[in-house]
Amino acid sequence: MRIVTFGEIMLRLKPPSAERFFQSPLLEATFGGGEANVAVSLANFGLDASFVTVLPKNDIGEACKGELRRFNVDTKNIASGDGRMGIYFLENGANQRASKVIYDRANSSIAGAQPGCIDWDTVFSGADWFHVTGITPAISQSAADLTLEAMTRAKKAGVKVSMDLNYRKNLWKYGKSAQEVMRELVKYADVCIANEEDVQKSLGITNEADITSGELDAKQYEALCKKVFAAYPNIEMLAITLRESKSADYNGWSACLYDGKEFLLSKKYEITDIVDRVGGGDSFCAGLIYGLFAYEDKRDALSFAVAASCLKHSISGDFNRVSVKEVQALMGGDGSGRVQR
Amino acid sequence: MRIVTFGEIMLRLKPPSAERFFQSPLLEATFGGGEANVAVSLANFGLDASFVTVLPKNDIGEACKGELRRFNVDTKNIASGDGRMGIYFLENGANQRASKVIYDRANSSIAGAQPGCIDWDTVFSGADWFHVTGITPAISQSAADLTLEAMTRAKKAGVKVSMDLNYRKNLWKYGKSAQEVMRELVKYADVCIANEEDVQKSLGITNEADITSGELDAKQYEALCKKVFAAYPNIEMLAITLRESKSADYNGWSACLYDGKEFLLSKKYEITDIVDRVGGGDSFCAGLIYGLFAYEDKRDALSFAVAASCLKHSISGDFNRVSVKEVQALMGGDGSGRVQR
Amino acid sequence: MRIVTFGEIMLRLKPPSAERFFQSPLLEATFGGGEANVAVSLANFGLDASFVTVLPKNDIGEACKGELRRFNVDTKNIASGDGRMGIYFLENGANQRASKVIYDRANSSIAGAQPGCIDWDTVFSGADWFHVTGITPAISQSAADLTLEAMTRAKKAGVKVSMDLNYRKNLWKYGKSAQEVMRELVKYADVCIANEEDVQKSLGITNEADITSGELDAKQYEALCKKVFAAYPNIEMLAITLRESKSADYNGWSACLYDGKEFLLSKKYEITDIVDRVGGGDSFCAGLIYGLFAYEDKRDALSFAVAASCLKHSISGDFNRVSVKEVQALMGGDGSGRVQR
Amino acid sequence: MRIVTFGEIMLRLKPPSAERFFQSPLLEATFGGGEANVAVSLANFGLDASFVTVLPKNDIGEACKGELRRFNVDTKNIASGDGRMGIYFLENGANQRASKVIYDRANSSIAGAQPGCIDWDTVFSGADWFHVTGITPAISQSAADLTLEAMTRAKKAGVKVSMDLNYRKNLWKYGKSAQEVMRELVKYADVCIANEEDVQKSLGITNEADITSGELDAKQYEALCKKVFAAYPNIEMLAITLRESKSADYNGWSACLYDGKEFLLSKKYEITDIVDRVGGGDSFCAGLIYGLFAYEDKRDALSFAVAASCLKHSISGDFNRVSVKEVQALMGGDGSGRVQR
Amino acid sequence: MRIVTFGEIMLRLKPPSAERFFQSPLLEATFGGGEANVAVSLANFGLDASFVTVLPKNDIGEACKGELRRFNVDTKNIASGDGRMGIYFLENGANQRASKVIYDRANSSIAGAQPGCIDWDTVFSGADWFHVTGITPAISQSAADLTLEAMTRAKKAGVKVSMDLNYRKNLWKYGKSAQEVMRELVKYADVCIANEEDVQKSLGITNEADITSGELDAKQYEALCKKVFAAYPNIEMLAITLRESKSADYNGWSACLYDGKEFLLSKKYEITDIVDRVGGGDSFCAGLIYGLFAYEDKRDALSFAVAASCLKHSISGDFNRVSVKEVQALMGGDGSGRVQR
Amino acid sequence: MRIVTFGEIMLRLKPPSAERFFQSPLLEATFGGGEANVAVSLANFGLDASFVTVLPKNDIGEACKGELRRFNVDTKNIASGDGRMGIYFLENGANQRASKVIYDRANSSIAGAQPGCIDWDTVFSGADWFHVTGITPAISQSAADLTLEAMTRAKKAGVKVSMDLNYRKNLWKYGKSAQEVMRELVKYADVCIANEEDVQKSLGITNEADITSGELDAKQYEALCKKVFAAYPNIEMLAITLRESKSADYNGWSACLYDGKEFLLSKKYEITDIVDRVGGGDSFCAGLIYGLFAYEDKRDALSFAVAASCLKHSISGDFNRVSVKEVQALMGGDGSGRVQR
Repeated sequence: MRIVTFGEIMLRLKPPSAERFFQSPLLEATFGGGEANVAVSLANFGLDASFVTVLPKNDIGEACKGELRRFNVDTKNIASGDGRMGIYFLENGANQRASKVIYDRANSSIAGAQPGCIDWDTVFSGADWFHVTGITPAISQSAADLTLEAMTRAKKAGVKVSMDLNYRKNLWKYGKSAQEVMRELVKYADVCIANEEDVQKSLGITNEADITSGELDAKQYEALCKKVFAAYPNIEMLAITLRESKSADYNGWSACLYDGKEFLLSKKYEITDIVDRVGGGDSFCAGLIYGLFAYEDKRDALSFAVAASCLKHSISGDFNRVSVKEVQALMGGDGSGRVQR
Repeated sequence: MRIVTFGEIMLRLKPPSAERFFQSPLLEATFGGGEANVAVSLANFGLDASFVTVLPKNDIGEACKGELRRFNVDTKNIASGDGRMGIYFLENGANQRASKVIYDRANSSIAGAQPGCIDWDTVFSGADWFHVTGITPAISQSAADLTLEAMTRAKKAGVKVSMDLNYRKNLWKYGKSAQEVMRELVKYADVCIANEEDVQKSLGITNEADITSGELDAKQYEALCKKVFAAYPNIEMLAITLRESKSADYNGWSACLYDGKEFLLSKKYEITDIVDRVGGGDSFCAGLIYGLFAYEDKRDALSFAVAASCLKHSISGDFNRVSVKEVQALMGGDGSGRVQR
Repeated sequence: MRIVTFGEIMLRLKPPSAERFFQSPLLEATFGGGEANVAVSLANFGLDASFVTVLPKNDIGEACKGELRRFNVDTKNIASGDGRMGIYFLENGANQRASKVIYDRANSSIAGAQPGCIDWDTVFSGADWFHVTGITPAISQSAADLTLEAMTRAKKAGVKVSMDLNYRKNLWKYGKSAQEVMRELVKYADVCIANEEDVQKSLGITNEADITSGELDAKQYEALCKKVFAAYPNIEMLAITLRESKSADYNGWSACLYDGKEFLLSKKYEITDIVDRVGGGDSFCAGLIYGLFAYEDKRDALSFAVAASCLKHSISGDFNRVSVKEVQALMGGDGSGRVQR
Repeated sequence: MRIVTFGEIMLRLKPPSAERFFQSPLLEATFGGGEANVAVSLANFGLDASFVTVLPKNDIGEACKGELRRFNVDTKNIASGDGRMGIYFLENGANQRASKVIYDRANSSIAGAQPGCIDWDTVFSGADWFHVTGITPAISQSAADLTLEAMTRAKKAGVKVSMDLNYRKNLWKYGKSAQEVMRELVKYADVCIANEEDVQKSLGITNEADITSGELDAKQYEALCKKVFAAYPNIEMLAITLRESKSADYNGWSACLYDGKEFLLSKKYEITDIVDRVGGGDSFCAGLIYGLFAYEDKRDALSFAVAASCLKHSISGDFNRVSVKEVQALMGGDGSGRVQR
Repeated sequence: MRIVTFGEIMLRLKPPSAERFFQSPLLEATFGGGEANVAVSLANFGLDASFVTVLPKNDIGEACKGELRRFNVDTKNIASGDGRMGIYFLENGANQRASKVIYDRANSSIAGAQPGCIDWDTVFSGADWFHVTGITPAISQSAADLTLEAMTRAKKAGVKVSMDLNYRKNLWKYGKSAQEVMRELVKYADVCIANEEDVQKSLGITNEADITSGELDAKQYEALCKKVFAAYPNIEMLAITLRESKSADYNGWSACLYDGKEFLLSKKYEITDIVDRVGGGDSFCAGLIYGLFAYEDKRDALSFAVAASCLKHSISGDFNRVSVKEVQALMGGDGSGRVQR
Repeated sequence: MRIVTFGEIMLRLKPPSAERFFQSPLLEATFGGGEANVAVSLANFGLDASFVTVLPKNDIGEACKGELRRFNVDTKNIASGDGRMGIYFLENGANQRASKVIYDRANSSIAGAQPGCIDWDTVFSGADWFHVTGITPAISQSAADLTLEAMTRAKKAGVKVSMDLNYRKNLWKYGKSAQEVMRELVKYADVCIANEEDVQKSLGITNEADITSGELDAKQYEALCKKVFAAYPNIEMLAITLRESKSADYNGWSACLYDGKEFLLSKKYEITDIVDRVGGGDSFCAGLIYGLFAYEDKRDALSFAVAASCLKHSISGDFNRVSVKEVQALMGGDGSGRVQR
């Protein structure tokens, strides 16, 4: 299966271990971004994944492409543009202290890119699946236009489209609200992935469940799914990730999936010693796409997605460096952490 | 508010992560010491903090002053003296293995400093609060004399005085016992901070509670407070920190406050993935001083102090690198560790 | 007491912290191997420990010997041979993600060593105890022959012999099964250490207990011990370590000991923030040997062994860098992790 | 003497040692910029130095201020503004391979700052000297306006003004050429510092000397100085730094000074094992300002400036971490590098 | 142009900076090997480069492939095989102390690979150039057979063949001498690259020049070239690299090229602050292949090759991380190391 | 041959690479001291070396002993004492910037040790050579007394005594001048090693040569040697090391040797890329002792000593990590730095 993802990839700068910003004069420099994370994860699962973006023509842009190729992600369709590489500074939390992100992504090449700058015919030739998120349209009007162009072209090319709503309150600064833009874009999605806050902030559809409490009420999530399906008849499948944040180190992690007929609730993983939770949602998206490709039963697809993203929490960096075999071992019940010799 | 703290600051040398001493040929080199930690924390809270000590005239002393200035601590009143920079070697514990400290602080500049070497008139001009600990008088007779000089001069200048009893069994080697000295000094304190062991070892006042058991009995702590107030009528407020050490990684953390009228017991935080507990008590002192300055209600002051020091456990190094906003978020109940984007 | 251990020592290469293999271009390079780990641990406990192996004549072999000497292990009886230094690559797990080992130990000097290459008379002169594991005979036919030679010569020299069965499924590739070889070797052991899987795979003696479940049934372990004693009348003592792997970070850890008369079950430690579990079993062997030497009561010996190996989980690297005093503190009940100042 | 410098300070991100960009996933993160470098250097020389800029209100801006305070630079007059922290990525050259800089400084807070945003009355109150460079006016029209405002206000306040022409060909992108702007600004400078290329590109005044050849012709530099004096009668002193780049590791370093009467040529230092040449020119400016303050004889001032900036090449980072005593030792002829015990 | 290179790639393990082996417990872990280095360098020059080898199926082999892809090297034709990843340990020299290599490459997957294991039809389809070295046939009989197979198949497919003689005295241990094997293989090479020692040890053709002296005698090298051409009429071009090792930090570097008609001697570079000389010869090979592709004049090709490999000495790791533009700048005479802003 | 050395060993704390003190919060932590350096070097040459000192009973003292054992130095005669481990902080110079040392060695265990605390009978049993330096008697009166005790006992035991004068101007603070003490001690030395400054400051014997100029006048050194022999008839051999400090990176290095009959001047090495010059003199002492043991001809002994200490400059840390084979290669003329594969 050939999957295309499209969006922004940033330079990620993080102080070592659990240090606060500039506690020592070192930053770990890697790359990451919602859609690129999905592409890397799918390439790690052995699928043919291609990432499309616009990057500046300098050594940082080249290094970024090299890093993607390392994971076997096809970078041939990445365009060059003016502007800079977006950056995000990440500080790892610990215990009651939250992780912290400072975005420095304004004026990136992708933010300045205009519709027409990418050859979608080439991009979608032979493609089976296209994945976007709600982050790209939040960056700039032109990026939102480009996202719409991508989605409509994908649909026209007969490519299945998935969208991770991914609401970010500190973006959406170019004059339009998330709902104005996202409600339109979602009409072109076949599969939707979100957490409860995303659904509310991007689509304006709310639940009664208290998202800050730890305990989940399956019934309420089923109701929420149905509301979304009612509003967007184009959606074939909606997955909602359920994160119970107990501390920066300890989260509960599960998800539910609704396909218009059945409401499925996954097993919940207790993740007690989180290494890095950034990219958790992206690894779920990749897991779900792979799961739907590899398994007949949606229950298995959901199970694969949740296990894959559970494992992401044990890996530093945005990318989910796990194999299908490792995810399947956890799906099969082995989370014992015994040394594999 | 202008706060002055006075005492020893040391070079802190620690092997990386959880390594034992000299497991690899690297030491993390930072600075710390009870009273300096309080000054840094208060400067981080936005107050006007000044630290007074005696340092050797070499690149290590200069680096130490530079590090304090970085946090906006006023170093203008730091005196120069003979002797060396005190050092403490710290090894981080893990689980059932305790953290370990080797002191190499003998013959430091502050240990050799004599009364008269600091211009207290300048130091206390414009000051509102003065903070000392039981560590400085434990170093040498002259340092004890200097502490007494400082406290009496502060009182005379109309400056509020707080003292953290901070008993250290490996100091007090110059011929006097902690009780001989501390019982006298405490007479000049308006606010006292201590843990139960400090009260017992420094003042000779004991409780029946078993300090090695995890469970606390509020009643007993109230009784202990009353005993201290009975013995030291000068004390206006006594705060006792309550640490339940379950392992090197997991502590319960709370405190109580008594003002002669009301006995207040704080919320208890479960800190399950401790990054660094050194400086926990100092961050409580700073939190309490800030809390008493910023809040009308002593309940809020105590709550701020406990939340501030809870967060300290998530930060490596002696200094509590948190802002008022972050402490207030935890006071307000958000210890969920969700990524702040 | 003079103890000799014999076996393979490898170069251990591990990515930093919890990184996956080659996530960054750095490897932590230390040394380790079952029998060497036991020697180092015993030297740390103050005993006279000697390690015997065959190493290549190059800077890596020399560095390895230097590292052993650092811990006061006698390296004078280490022979030089053709071949290379065995290597094992270790990736630290986290939470649900397991640790992973890649062995690159084929064609090591010890694998190619023949009986006769070590002067056992010199080695066992003055020795009280000899310790081997089931790893060496798993490497090659000649290493198995050499192990048999060592054990028979030790018995002949009146030296007490202990053997850690230590089954490794990825070794035993030279044409014989573990049971073919181990059943013969165990006949020369006075003390046997194993986990349940080792007993089953090396001796073919099984239990009904489900080794993947967390909960232990003491009765079944007692029964298992009796089966082993029945099959091997030469065995005077059998210790079984009981690891409950809940995640890569959290294990339960205990052990039982049977001497033909009494079945003793140790206290169980909850180890919730594991730093490094590799070498846990080896540290138990060392703890048991020291315990049997230092205590009259087998209960104390077992207690020492379990506490020693509990502490190993807090230390990175194969070697258990703890002192008798630290083990005794934990035996005595202090696992509170309070800072030792 | 109180000196004020004004301009941009950036986050400097550099791969470790001589690595190329992203050769490993680490960047050394420090701060630097022409005018800030001058302030730090002067503070290290014991003068009262204040740095004025506009920084974003986030943890990066705060860390930058903290780093300046560490060196005793007054940061009270730093304003807060919208926009981001400018960044420059630096790759260290070696031998025939040149060092490389990627600027990511567009849309910084200082670039967006407007005249009026800084309270120059407060800034120049008590000031003796004001230093700017040709970098700030190269960033944006408003920054050029702000520079002009600063220089005119300084003159009005009776403050001596120095300007480092500092031509950067990759800036000057907002629609005006360097000469259009700089020719106007230089009219407000009392002291000018430049290299030959700066004079040519910023003022349009050329020399016949071949700047790419290593050998200098003093006569030609004297002629060049006279041309500048003829064009700008306001200039009291002009210093030209003379760098002979033989390789990334080996430079010749000297300078000349002209005051309208005498033309002085300094000693030339052979710097053969360069650690970091970035900030070399800035350290010369600081050395010259200090030299003019501390010495009667301009010859000494020039000599101090060249020695100070020679030493900068031995120090990593933008800042010149040397003391007056160290510069004087080199001035006095001791460049032997003997260990100072 | 599509280039294929074939041979061994190893894990390269090096202590940090100039440390001796195991001076600290860290090794820098990268990958390298003669033929892979050539492929990476050519891909960096923008050509379509493919590397063929046999790797073990484990995380180390996968990481190696990922690292090659990062540089845009095609890894699709890399086969999987039994055996291990070869390793070489490298210690950086300094001054009079030489760099040191410990090979641990026995029993690698490539050493055990048999003719027939690679699909040469696919490999050479569309290929223009094939490059091998004298290292692969030195590893084992089967690797020598495989090399012969590769060269004959390349010739049959009309692909140009280059061979770097690359004599290594510590290989050639499987029973044949270098000359026995290399004399046969060289018959299939169109272009030969070597240093003087290689010619002597691999082909048995000697010169009178003293290879340990620094000074070169062009005449003698021309004579040597003619001898080789006389012995091997198939050779169209012979390049000899001329390294004058003055110390571990300082080498002279030049080369000569003979095509049967003209003898060309390149400029000599003085490389005084070597970062890493390993891979210098490989970077020359890549430079020559690119040069012959890009330039009409062989003089330019040689000039490009020498400049490219001069720059390699400034880069750590086996791979030559430079662009065509950077090589051309040095060819054009700019080795001044001025900062490129 | 069994050699004993006696003196102080310190913890050495150094910022990474060429950083100034506390430029980043890391210190490299190793051990070193004149006499220990000699012992390590001799053990590396394969001799039986024993180091005698007094160390505190804590983890730092234990780590120090472990580090010595790693090099095969016998630590059995190291005594335990009160007091601390001496420390020296070292900052690496570069080019014109000198290296810098801050001593923090007051109140060390060895400084407080009294005559009688070491069992010299055991120490000198079987010993052939005893080496001391002028550093130990410079620390304290009791350390001077202990040095005298050691030297007289060595002489009495028939052990050859060598002394490195090693003058340190920042020691000698306990009330006696270097000359008062050293003139007496030198009377018990058979072999003396010194540089010209040492001879002048420790013995009061001067030369006319200008020690700050680079060029040496052999005649003057011969004259100096004769003056020393005239004053101290007990001396059998005097070696003077001749360091020409051109910069922190570049030194000339040679030595001369006088035995009362012949004056020998060694080859001079140009050391252009110094890694670490600390311990250079100690490595000469060790080289001379080994040379006198291994060679008939004093010329060879001197040659070995100079080559060994030349190589020391390429190695970081106090210890000279080179083998006899490596020194002999350099003696034989190979300083070409060619990679040893």
